Amino acid sequence: MAEATANIGVIGLAAMGSNLARNLAHHGNTVAVYNRHYSRTEDLMRDHGMEGQFVPAHTIEEFVASLKKPRTAIILVKAGAPTDAVIDELEAAMEPGDIIVDGGNSYFKDTIRREKEVRAKGFHFVGCGVSGGEEGALNGPSLMPGGTDESWKTLGPILKSIAAKAEDDGAPCVTHIGENGAGHFVKMVHNGIEYADMQVISEAYDLMRRGLGMTPDEIGDQFEEWNKTELNSYLIEITADILHEKDKKTGKPLVDVIVDQAGMKGTGTWTVQTALSLGTSVTAIAEGVFARAISSQTGLRQEAAKQGLAGPDGRIDIPEDAKKAFIEDIRQALYASKIVAYAQGFNEISDGAKEYDWNIDLAAVARIWRGGCIIRAQFLNKVSDAFESGEAEVSMLFASYFEKAMEKAQGSWRRVVAKAAEVGVPAPVFSSSLSYYDALRSRRLPAALIQGQRDFFGAHTYGRVDEPGAFHTLWAQEGREEIKES
Amino acid sequence: MAEATANIGVIGLAAMGSNLARNLAHHGNTVAVYNRHYSRTEDLMRDHGMEGQFVPAHTIEEFVASLKKPRTAIILVKAGAPTDAVIDELEAAMEPGDIIVDGGNSYFKDTIRREKEVRAKGFHFVGCGVSGGEEGALNGPSLMPGGTDESWKTLGPILKSIAAKAEDDGAPCVTHIGENGAGHFVKMVHNGIEYADMQVISEAYDLMRRGLGMTPDEIGDQFEEWNKTELNSYLIEITADILHEKDKKTGKPLVDVIVDQAGMKGTGTWTVQTALSLGTSVTAIAEGVFARAISSQTGLRQEAAKQGLAGPDGRIDIPEDAKKAFIEDIRQALYASKIVAYAQGFNEISDGAKEYDWNIDLAAVARIWRGGCIIRAQFLNKVSDAFESGEAEVSMLFASYFEKAMEKAQGSWRRVVAKAAEVGVPAPVFSSSLSYYDALRSRRLPAALIQGQRDFFGAHTYGRVDEPGAFHTLWAQEGREEIKES
Repeated sequence: MAEATANIGVIGLAAMGSNLARNLAHHGNTVAVYNRHYSRTEDLMRDHGMEGQFVPAHTIEEFVASLKKPRTAIILVKAGAPTDAVIDELEAAMEPGDIIVDGGNSYFKDTIRREKEVRAKGFHFVGCGVSGGEEGALNGPSLMPGGTDESWKTLGPILKSIAAKAEDDGAPCVTHIGENGAGHFVKMVHNGIEYADMQVISEAYDLMRRGLGMTPDEIGDQFEEWNKTELNSYLIEITADILHEKDKKTGKPLVDVIVDQAGMKGTGTWTVQTALSLGTSVTAIAEGVFARAISSQTGLRQEAAKQGLAGPDGRIDIPEDAKKAFIEDIRQALYASKIVAYAQGFNEISDGAKEYDWNIDLAAVARIWRGGCIIRAQFLNKVSDAFESGEAEVSMLFASYFEKAMEKAQGSWRRVVAKAAEVGVPAPVFSSSLSYYDALRSRRLPAALIQGQRDFFGAHTYGRVDEPGAFHTLWAQEGREEIKES
Repeated sequence: MAEATANIGVIGLAAMGSNLARNLAHHGNTVAVYNRHYSRTEDLMRDHGMEGQFVPAHTIEEFVASLKKPRTAIILVKAGAPTDAVIDELEAAMEPGDIIVDGGNSYFKDTIRREKEVRAKGFHFVGCGVSGGEEGALNGPSLMPGGTDESWKTLGPILKSIAAKAEDDGAPCVTHIGENGAGHFVKMVHNGIEYADMQVISEAYDLMRRGLGMTPDEIGDQFEEWNKTELNSYLIEITADILHEKDKKTGKPLVDVIVDQAGMKGTGTWTVQTALSLGTSVTAIAEGVFARAISSQTGLRQEAAKQGLAGPDGRIDIPEDAKKAFIEDIRQALYASKIVAYAQGFNEISDGAKEYDWNIDLAAVARIWRGGCIIRAQFLNKVSDAFESGEAEVSMLFASYFEKAMEKAQGSWRRVVAKAAEVGVPAPVFSSSLSYYDALRSRRLPAALIQGQRDFFGAHTYGRVDEPGAFHTLWAQEGREEIKES
């Protein structure tokens, strides 16, 4: 058996796993590596073995034997059954007190289940969200570990060594999120927010493209400009890059040769499904997810193209000298919608924490998203401040910085949503976020009428504004008596 | 033991169960009745025993013994564990070939599971959606049974006897929806559509109330007028009724004393969660569900009221003589959004049928919704025709009748959505449905940009419009080579 020399191990050496192993090695860790098919391990050793201290293993027993106690192994295999299989193998080879880390995109309820099962056998189990893709895994991801405080003592320093460092203060983009499934829950919501973030960028693009008739190049320039404003972020930056890209084969803008059907892998869907169960409104995220679904409902779209549904052609007729102001309106609409999406996402984390009994520091979550992950942005410093100060406790929208931003943006936002409706460019997240904002502002909502309807047809009862209790009107009865039910 | 004289039995004699038992008895059935606490059975016999042939039972064994073969028992107890417990008891007392019917609001996946378990023991299991509330149960519900063809042979005539009869042709509002969970699935989507239907009415109300400053009475008159148009439906009818209602205590319009927090019981949530899993866009239904969620997020709303978020006050400033035209615009917006909501709901049924291998006749579904249920409406004749003709196969929106309706409505719809955004009245379903309609109309969606972003940060690949296969751009590389991955 191998000598126990490694302080961390990685199981599963596909792109994410091997990059994470290399990142660990680059930061002074001695990294045990294991893959079901040894050829991948060989590839890693051959191509990158000189980058640091690796301990390649042929078997899981050898892998475990090469780890120092408490043994710490990060699993990076496919979510679901393959993850469960590796956990079983590790349990058979490890000893109580050892730490099993699931670095995949697992569903947080699976993580809650696994943590319980694994802990019952005396091991620690850490579901750890890893954001930033392959590049992040190599050069610094944003890390969202769950699990026990004790496991964090061992794991924390290792994860801090490999995490991205925030641009502003150099702080590592990792924090102990909370017990059991908290890390994967927060990663899930991160991805949900990412869907909304990408969709608002797309809506802005579409309005400039179809609405104002700008070229991808011109719009790319615009995004480059916007990247110098409050919108400064990785996604805005790469959008400029993508829009400037020319297709080698045709010479056209690359965006024009890409099939307009957006794929998805499930975390956005989970975010909305979970929010629905929690009763949290995440309309901006939901519309972002549905926008992708619509784009991929090819049967519907083909039939629509064949039939030519009635409506305007999307062109916005405004004088050349008003264009600049309207582009600024679009930027403000993007910013306001983005703020709503983040506010909703943080509400979901907050509601999830209550439901699953996690103690999550929302300011810390915002801080670790500042670097390494897909939604990294300057803006998250302000989000973090807002939670830090307590102003955002109920919602980010109530923190003075964002309240002012919304105040400034809302006129533009309304003009853009109105114009999009008028000319026929779909702007689902722009308009849904605005509806959400206006619903929150409403002292009275027409939900009172809905309660009346529910009482009418289903005797579901309603509350009165002037008296506690549940009331039911005997609608079918002459004189319509109201009875108090509780 | 009792003699086997009953041709049908009802278990669970709360409001729904006792009303359904009475309905059965009114139509010449001999109805065995059983309730866990006998007092409820006594109440039914005392108050309604003379209305028809009932056979009260003290025990489940006595209940089963009183049923003629094949014994058919409808369970109307709480969904979840209580339903499972009654199924267990019935199985112990019944014989293979007997039919167990679950008439509760069960989750369709539970029904799929139960059907499988119960069938393995030789019984039939029918998950049957029952719509129309207590009043419908008594006077004629809309019924959506799943289960085997064989069970339908016995059950069909009985259900036809008690179902609502459609106003136009007197056809009973029941059809055999499909195998196992199909009935509960369709009932779930029915409820999802109901959420959207109630929300679009609320948005119309809100725009007239806050926007145009009309009184509930005036708006009630309007809904009464609208009920003579294409909008003719039960929900529009009761809305007029509710808006005309005065509170006895204060003399105010009743709608003004009702707390504006809409409750929900889960089926709307299931509809959206299921659609997300299926990849079906049901934005109108989702916004309807989220609108209720927002109304009940009291922490958020109270804080918003305290802070006073910036924005206009909702008032629509238009000259008195333009008001009438704008009210017609609102009616058209309601109609168009309603059509979208139904189209999305039927898409979900169609996608669910593919996923779960059901053979569902959508025209028949529309037909049985014409009477008895909450969303009953004239309009459903047109929906049924659209599916019957094959024109609606891909979507209701492509049937000529609805295409023309949308063509006529869309100008109004756009004006209303634009005005709502401008003045700050939330109109989430109006605007989300319009976005959906415009997305379908779009030859190119900005989803191409999203695919570019996904390829940039996650190497997720994209398709090309001019060549099959999956492509990846090496974004980080000088010259940006494109590689074909498959």
